[in-house]
Amino acid sequence: MAENMQEMQGRESNMPENVVYVGKKPAMNYVLAVVTQFNNGAKSVTIKARGNTIGRAVDVAEIARNRFVMDTKVNNISISSEEITNEDGTKSKVSAIQIVLAK
Amino acid sequence: MAENMQEMQGRESNMPENVVYVGKKPAMNYVLAVVTQFNNGAKSVTIKARGNTIGRAVDVAEIARNRFVMDTKVNNISISSEEITNEDGTKSKVSAIQIVLAK
Repeated sequence: MAENMQEMQGRESNMPENVVYVGKKPAMNYVLAVVTQFNNGAKSVTIKARGNTIGRAVDVAEIARNRFVMDTKVNNISISSEEITNEDGTKSKVSAIQIVLAK
Repeated sequence: MAENMQEMQGRESNMPENVVYVGKKPAMNYVLAVVTQFNNGAKSVTIKARGNTIGRAVDVAEIARNRFVMDTKVNNISISSEEITNEDGTKSKVSAIQIVLAK
């Protein structure tokens, strides 16, 4: 029987998969990434962060929509807990945030 | 010895004004405040933070609802920018978050 029913390759580039992961760099680096995605035609951009960088993700969303892509708004915000494995093999929980900006 | 718990101001528990401001103390301090509000009959508790403590506010919400008040869920999350006046009189913008946990 044919078993390739779930072939999911070859995704269209206009899928709503525009994600910016916020790390430890200055917020403006990520703001630029968000703005670039919108300028490339994205209808929505998702900003993700966890742990210490959650505050910076909120900064990124606020700076982007107040100063650069004023025609967007916060479409959805969700928080969650993720389990991460530390370098020594132990596990710990870390909070995460996901902010969706959309036109 | 006599535990000197601060006497609650006999507020009506159905007021939507149960706010916990998250600052620089350990997250569990604020988790305890949230749990206490629900145990006192609150139907919803709002967790607020700004700047550096935004990540901690997310921790507080996640710890509270995953470990202590499991019958609550995240009802609403909003982000904003607030202007604060620094000690030297200059002004700067800071991001803020508001997370509403509700039964």
